Amino acid sequence: MSFITLTSDFGSGSPYVAAMKGVILSIDPDARIVDVTHAIGAQDVRQGALVLEEVTPWFPAGTIHVAVVDPGVGSRRRTVYAEIGDQRYLAPDNGLLDRLAARRRVSRIIAVTERAFWLPTVSATFHGRDIMAPVAARLSRGLAAEQLGPPIEKLVTLTWPEVVVLPREIRGTVQSIDSFGNLITDITGPMLADVPRDESVRIECDEHETLGIYRTYSDQPAMTLMALVGSSGRLELAIVEDSAAAMLGIRTGTP
Amino acid sequence: MSFITLTSDFGSGSPYVAAMKGVILSIDPDARIVDVTHAIGAQDVRQGALVLEEVTPWFPAGTIHVAVVDPGVGSRRRTVYAEIGDQRYLAPDNGLLDRLAARRRVSRIIAVTERAFWLPTVSATFHGRDIMAPVAARLSRGLAAEQLGPPIEKLVTLTWPEVVVLPREIRGTVQSIDSFGNLITDITGPMLADVPRDESVRIECDEHETLGIYRTYSDQPAMTLMALVGSSGRLELAIVEDSAAAMLGIRTGTP
Amino acid sequence: MSFITLTSDFGSGSPYVAAMKGVILSIDPDARIVDVTHAIGAQDVRQGALVLEEVTPWFPAGTIHVAVVDPGVGSRRRTVYAEIGDQRYLAPDNGLLDRLAARRRVSRIIAVTERAFWLPTVSATFHGRDIMAPVAARLSRGLAAEQLGPPIEKLVTLTWPEVVVLPREIRGTVQSIDSFGNLITDITGPMLADVPRDESVRIECDEHETLGIYRTYSDQPAMTLMALVGSSGRLELAIVEDSAAAMLGIRTGTP
Repeated sequence: MSFITLTSDFGSGSPYVAAMKGVILSIDPDARIVDVTHAIGAQDVRQGALVLEEVTPWFPAGTIHVAVVDPGVGSRRRTVYAEIGDQRYLAPDNGLLDRLAARRRVSRIIAVTERAFWLPTVSATFHGRDIMAPVAARLSRGLAAEQLGPPIEKLVTLTWPEVVVLPREIRGTVQSIDSFGNLITDITGPMLADVPRDESVRIECDEHETLGIYRTYSDQPAMTLMALVGSSGRLELAIVEDSAAAMLGIRTGTP
Repeated sequence: MSFITLTSDFGSGSPYVAAMKGVILSIDPDARIVDVTHAIGAQDVRQGALVLEEVTPWFPAGTIHVAVVDPGVGSRRRTVYAEIGDQRYLAPDNGLLDRLAARRRVSRIIAVTERAFWLPTVSATFHGRDIMAPVAARLSRGLAAEQLGPPIEKLVTLTWPEVVVLPREIRGTVQSIDSFGNLITDITGPMLADVPRDESVRIECDEHETLGIYRTYSDQPAMTLMALVGSSGRLELAIVEDSAAAMLGIRTGTP
Repeated sequence: MSFITLTSDFGSGSPYVAAMKGVILSIDPDARIVDVTHAIGAQDVRQGALVLEEVTPWFPAGTIHVAVVDPGVGSRRRTVYAEIGDQRYLAPDNGLLDRLAARRRVSRIIAVTERAFWLPTVSATFHGRDIMAPVAARLSRGLAAEQLGPPIEKLVTLTWPEVVVLPREIRGTVQSIDSFGNLITDITGPMLADVPRDESVRIECDEHETLGIYRTYSDQPAMTLMALVGSSGRLELAIVEDSAAAMLGIRTGTP
């Protein structure tokens, strides 16, 4: 028995998710399934990669994470199994695992080609239900990963905007926006280690700016634009008790 | 112990769903509860019937599916228990089980009238919590279905638009729209068995048309309107990497 | 092993919820986690308090309810553990538990100050993941509550509009709106015990009014504005088969 998590762009409450759960539980009734999210933007592989990086390492070692954000379903892109850090992943090989692979040890990658472990009939458009769900359930019951198909060398990668660190300036990008409307950048805490926190620091985003880097949202009055290092360890811009996404500056300038 | 699934029109994240789960777990702490969806349109019995048909047969045999889409709650409509295929259902008798019953063997139907298995106080407006949840939990603990009330003959049925199959034409209807905006019809794969897949076939929907039936979304370039047989085995219309629902032609014409 | 429920304003499908689940399951793999809702309005402590009051008493005795609606995260507000009725709660001490505490016996309140049971690194902005999730998992594994920190006397309270009961009139307030658009007031069934149900009773809300208090939605024709005592035992205003929230009268007048 393992934990199996599901991440997709199917939309919260999609019956597609429930069909995957039915397939998993029909093969491994003891599997314990947890939803990571089904609210990834439709076919937004980058957002999926960021969420997988942020959330999945918090799960127990050996958890099987099934990720379905798959614009190329039915085409020749591969389905892969990968062991990254102490977690296991099943995903289309389209860059979804790229962020995880860039920062943690990848100990194994396998092409999921052995049809004996899939559903008997595989639709061209729903590999999550017909390939990934049954394979995850069989891994959960103890199937050895090497039986899934041949090992491969490298996962498909994506290109990401680079953070530029200059002597008196760091340039990054707003990478995601959370449900409170906070703008989360790709500038990490370590990059800011030598940066002062006081009002000598200017943070610019689009035509907006704010001074200083704070510790928490309650350090500033309501309706103030402020910067802080958030729970994911990255610089974020927030409007206290309101949504900074309303102003939606997509590029961040910097200290 | 059984699996119990929940399907409703309460909305994703509705506290009504959690109240039902609390009632179930208070009676059977070992029950394993899976959400099918709570995003059925408010009081849309037809959509509920389609989702139950598509999703619930994927679950392990004996799963108890509780479905609450119930415009007539508190009126004289019955609550029913039914065994359809290898699954079990609890639902208002308002047509929600009609699609399942039309296509799979119905081996038992029982009117849920025995109040001993309900909550002691039953509100007039929330039978999901006060009748269906406790009955599901007691079935999960092994209660025999015949104790729930008297057997009945027939479930309430709905009328559905018929698919018309002519020598050189099939007329169907767009029956549902998924979260990607794909338009899913009631024309099934078997109805299309003798239809060619090439560009001699014309698919019309409202004032739009496309030629050929493809295997998968990636067979056509982005932004193309295309037809394919989707993961539910039915003809669907999609715009590659975008939402076909934007064009919202409700009736489909045909090959 | 205990049941652990989660309530937050993170939004349905938020990856923040999944991170909390990962932390809980890493510490107690046997914990059974149920979502109450993550659709509380951003930082709406009152709505959170109402949902906790309505839903959590339905769960098995001893369930641990983790509630994160926390505008003051990172400030000096306390995190508290409380035993209320036969349930256990972990929440910021900001009024979230105020409705429960006002109506049920509070047998214990403890300030959650012992850092040994938190994650080793605590971010300033995500106490749900870094403090409440690991503490809930340790309680689930049997940790005695008194080890969490010192007992305290009183929870923070909120002020709520009072229901005014006059000889021929009851004045209340619309307190919440459910996913069907029904307007749910703070006027309870017992307050209405001596009120007739027939058309001699006038219910006013904003500039709208209706006569009589009914038993269930199907007692009136479609599109009628009607009043009834709903599943939470409180007076509500509904438009049959439609959403009364469209008319959004925020204050209720009365019988």
